[in-house]
Amino acid sequence: MAARYAVGVDIGGTKIYAGIINVETGEVLGTARKRTHPERGEGFFSERLISVIDTALTETKIPGSGAPEAIGVGIAGQVDRVSGLLLAAPNLAEGMRNFPVSQLLSERFRLPIVLGNDVEVATYGEQQFGSGRGYDDFVCVFVGTGIGGAIVQNGTIRKGATGTAGEIGHTVVQYGGRICGCGGRGHLEAYASRTAITRVLLAELSRGRESKLRDLIGKDDAAIRSGVIARCFKDGDELVTETLTEAADFLGAGLGSLATFYNPRRIILGGGLIEAVEPFMVRAEHRAREVALPVPGRALEIVRAALGDNSGIVGAAWMAANRPTGEAV
Amino acid sequence: MAARYAVGVDIGGTKIYAGIINVETGEVLGTARKRTHPERGEGFFSERLISVIDTALTETKIPGSGAPEAIGVGIAGQVDRVSGLLLAAPNLAEGMRNFPVSQLLSERFRLPIVLGNDVEVATYGEQQFGSGRGYDDFVCVFVGTGIGGAIVQNGTIRKGATGTAGEIGHTVVQYGGRICGCGGRGHLEAYASRTAITRVLLAELSRGRESKLRDLIGKDDAAIRSGVIARCFKDGDELVTETLTEAADFLGAGLGSLATFYNPRRIILGGGLIEAVEPFMVRAEHRAREVALPVPGRALEIVRAALGDNSGIVGAAWMAANRPTGEAV
Repeated sequence: MAARYAVGVDIGGTKIYAGIINVETGEVLGTARKRTHPERGEGFFSERLISVIDTALTETKIPGSGAPEAIGVGIAGQVDRVSGLLLAAPNLAEGMRNFPVSQLLSERFRLPIVLGNDVEVATYGEQQFGSGRGYDDFVCVFVGTGIGGAIVQNGTIRKGATGTAGEIGHTVVQYGGRICGCGGRGHLEAYASRTAITRVLLAELSRGRESKLRDLIGKDDAAIRSGVIARCFKDGDELVTETLTEAADFLGAGLGSLATFYNPRRIILGGGLIEAVEPFMVRAEHRAREVALPVPGRALEIVRAALGDNSGIVGAAWMAANRPTGEAV
Repeated sequence: MAARYAVGVDIGGTKIYAGIINVETGEVLGTARKRTHPERGEGFFSERLISVIDTALTETKIPGSGAPEAIGVGIAGQVDRVSGLLLAAPNLAEGMRNFPVSQLLSERFRLPIVLGNDVEVATYGEQQFGSGRGYDDFVCVFVGTGIGGAIVQNGTIRKGATGTAGEIGHTVVQYGGRICGCGGRGHLEAYASRTAITRVLLAELSRGRESKLRDLIGKDDAAIRSGVIARCFKDGDELVTETLTEAADFLGAGLGSLATFYNPRRIILGGGLIEAVEPFMVRAEHRAREVALPVPGRALEIVRAALGDNSGIVGAAWMAANRPTGEAV
């Protein structure tokens, strides 16, 4: 039987990332990526999305006479799978609402389009080809701009009563504490996401705190990305070390609570910050075991997302190849 | 077909409570209860346990020629169901370890004995005959001396990787906060259990704070029970109102986080404090909806345990009648 291929696309607030994937093995044959630039609006977003997929397709040689059978798209926003609409995604393009992603892509590429949430597709990737393989009871937590999560129960992603299960980033770790991007208070995301860390770093810089960060970012606040943070940490910068340690401790508190309440066999950690800064995950894992009750804490496995940055594109491609277009979920 | 009956026993740190139950309807035919007095040790505990069951059996008239077919026991401690041992229960009798509950009761009553955890049997009670009836996806939370919980998934209680799932009382609501009875910090139980509330009240009294509580309890600290707290609250006592409100807000934060992460259809609230103080639950429910993300928060049903104080004895009897003795769980 000939191998099967699909395009996987991972759309986040920072970048649009596409790849051509062998959906039976999870192999990534070729990729393309570009910055999202949310401030440039909907028109820019449409062109950029098509151009990234185009580049990935053009620059990837598929063995034999293989061709992608579908395009799977994971989006950091709220999607309607049946109508193929991106309902709302303020992090992707300013003012964008009810944007017809499926129509745009199917007209251009003449392939079936399947939409999903970014956390959902990354979870599919890890489940099928990564750290979730062989496990039917685990939780994925992705730490980046925000903190997202998904619960896998008996081999399928838990939807819950309103289809929103897994939102660990918006659970309370400090009642009455920091204001979260969602408007809530004391949420994990307000302490342990890259956004939270960046906010602390900028605040400390603005009040005159010394840090190598100052030279590295110059006057460009947006230059504080995972790579820059990782570099400062490696150089032993006090401000960055202190800030990352605090964030990792809060992440650990959230993961430890999860282990105590839900008692999963395994937690899979992914996302930009986890990828870029090794000691961040080590510290969070250590803290999680300290915070959890001893019995579930000792048994808990915390592992890195095996596909790293590719969880999303691999999972999106797998989803597209294994689910009828437009299926209600 | 003749009706079926079983004895249900609920053993907690405050009281030992037994009932004769129709295990097909959940009807409670008769009950008996006595204080546990943990400080009096193992011998006292054995005699008391037998005497409570004896009283319930003697004083209950079972219709027709009916007789109980088994005894189910829910215990606030760690049990080994196969060997019928109570492994450890510092809250029931000082120094008690590996206590042969099943042997003691089967020798005396000549009936099959089935052991379970107190939270587990109360959850069975609510699931079969109470607020969980007709739901296969809910979470029970019991607020008393401690805070326990159980997750019901697809109609069965989730065990998790180490059989300890559901321990919401030991999840973090205030990272680095109050020391919990388990040694951890910032746990929900350290803010919202009756033990936590009592600790705050005694501390405030000791530093001279005015309260009606002072007259009601005299010099007996142990007299601070749910009933006394309820009475002071009803009378508008400032200290008690303030302390209960704070505790309810923390409970709401824990329940709201649960709704955000796990997104259950329904949360069932039970336990002494929930039974005794109506506004405590109302406040916690309100806070939970405020704390949860809007979509899961709006859909969440928070309801009182329909069987009230009887959840445990009804569930224990049901368990005994519906599970082979000594089954490993």
